Amino acid sequence: MRIFISGPSGVGKSSVIKEILKRKPDTVLSVSYTTRAPRPGEHDGTDYFFVSRDTFEEMIEKGSFLEWANVHGHLYGTSLAWVESREADGFNVLFDIDVQGVIQAKAQGSKGCFIFLVPPDMEELSRRLNGRGTEDTRQLALRLENARHELTYWTIYDYLVVNDSLEKTIEDVSTIMEAQGLLKEEVIRKLPWLSTIA
Amino acid sequence: MRIFISGPSGVGKSSVIKEILKRKPDTVLSVSYTTRAPRPGEHDGTDYFFVSRDTFEEMIEKGSFLEWANVHGHLYGTSLAWVESREADGFNVLFDIDVQGVIQAKAQGSKGCFIFLVPPDMEELSRRLNGRGTEDTRQLALRLENARHELTYWTIYDYLVVNDSLEKTIEDVSTIMEAQGLLKEEVIRKLPWLSTIA
Repeated sequence: MRIFISGPSGVGKSSVIKEILKRKPDTVLSVSYTTRAPRPGEHDGTDYFFVSRDTFEEMIEKGSFLEWANVHGHLYGTSLAWVESREADGFNVLFDIDVQGVIQAKAQGSKGCFIFLVPPDMEELSRRLNGRGTEDTRQLALRLENARHELTYWTIYDYLVVNDSLEKTIEDVSTIMEAQGLLKEEVIRKLPWLSTIA
Repeated sequence: MRIFISGPSGVGKSSVIKEILKRKPDTVLSVSYTTRAPRPGEHDGTDYFFVSRDTFEEMIEKGSFLEWANVHGHLYGTSLAWVESREADGFNVLFDIDVQGVIQAKAQGSKGCFIFLVPPDMEELSRRLNGRGTEDTRQLALRLENARHELTYWTIYDYLVVNDSLEKTIEDVSTIMEAQGLLKEEVIRKLPWLSTIA
């Protein structure tokens, strides 16, 4: 099962994803391919698959990516084969993904559920972005404007979860994942007698 | 929110629906229109809306039904306007519906989730049909054959729930209903600030 989670900057997406992974041992985070160099402490195959630009571009040509993007000159992408092998091993794959990635994954016809985390309101989002305290007023205004723009894409998702309290959000995402496990495509795999009925 | 529940004869659908309605005060069972006469103890507007054949046929011509059927010469149907008025009052509407009804509701483009209750296996379904003890062998074989045929329609549903234990089935249906409440169409109604963002 594939669970795609997006949300604007400041919504608290990282905490939600970290907590879901902690509580669900049958769920793994998608590991991306990237052309950027490993940073100290990063391990190949755990944080990213570090590859050359040539390798990455070959993979693009072969249609190997579920989605990919160029971020500040470095390429990042999710290998469809890697996702499928994790699924074949019985794991759910969780994607920490942005709006552009979701558009691509949907265009590829990827199955899975697309969840958009939203703040209770814009004031709260502004407070959370402020709370980071690492940026000046102009940068903050820019980040808030970007977040507002990202929020206009709520229509392309399946589910909206208001991240008010972390606990309630984890509960909601878990409910969505459990319901996903009851979709006919998931259940039928455990019912060979039904799939062959005629 | 609309929840359509189907299942072959003997699967235990009535018990599941009864229990869901008992536990969820915000959920009502769909009340059908019918041309058959009220039986002793049945009340108009609670058990059915009892109408003349002329009225019913007028409603068909006006496209008033989400689905309708002719059962042993009597007409039965679900009024779309009635469903919408219950939804406008804030209720979830639960449908006890058969395969043909689901095909019609889907053809009308009805929103909602379609749940198919299935037995753990055919042997268990046979035992349950047997357990009713009201029919002779030939009737039983016919009912089992009908149930087997209905099961081939599992592909037109969204969700499959194996009715092994009643408690687990109620839990699964509740999970599906909760997830349904997190769909963007449901959540956006509570977030006017997000629906008007630009």
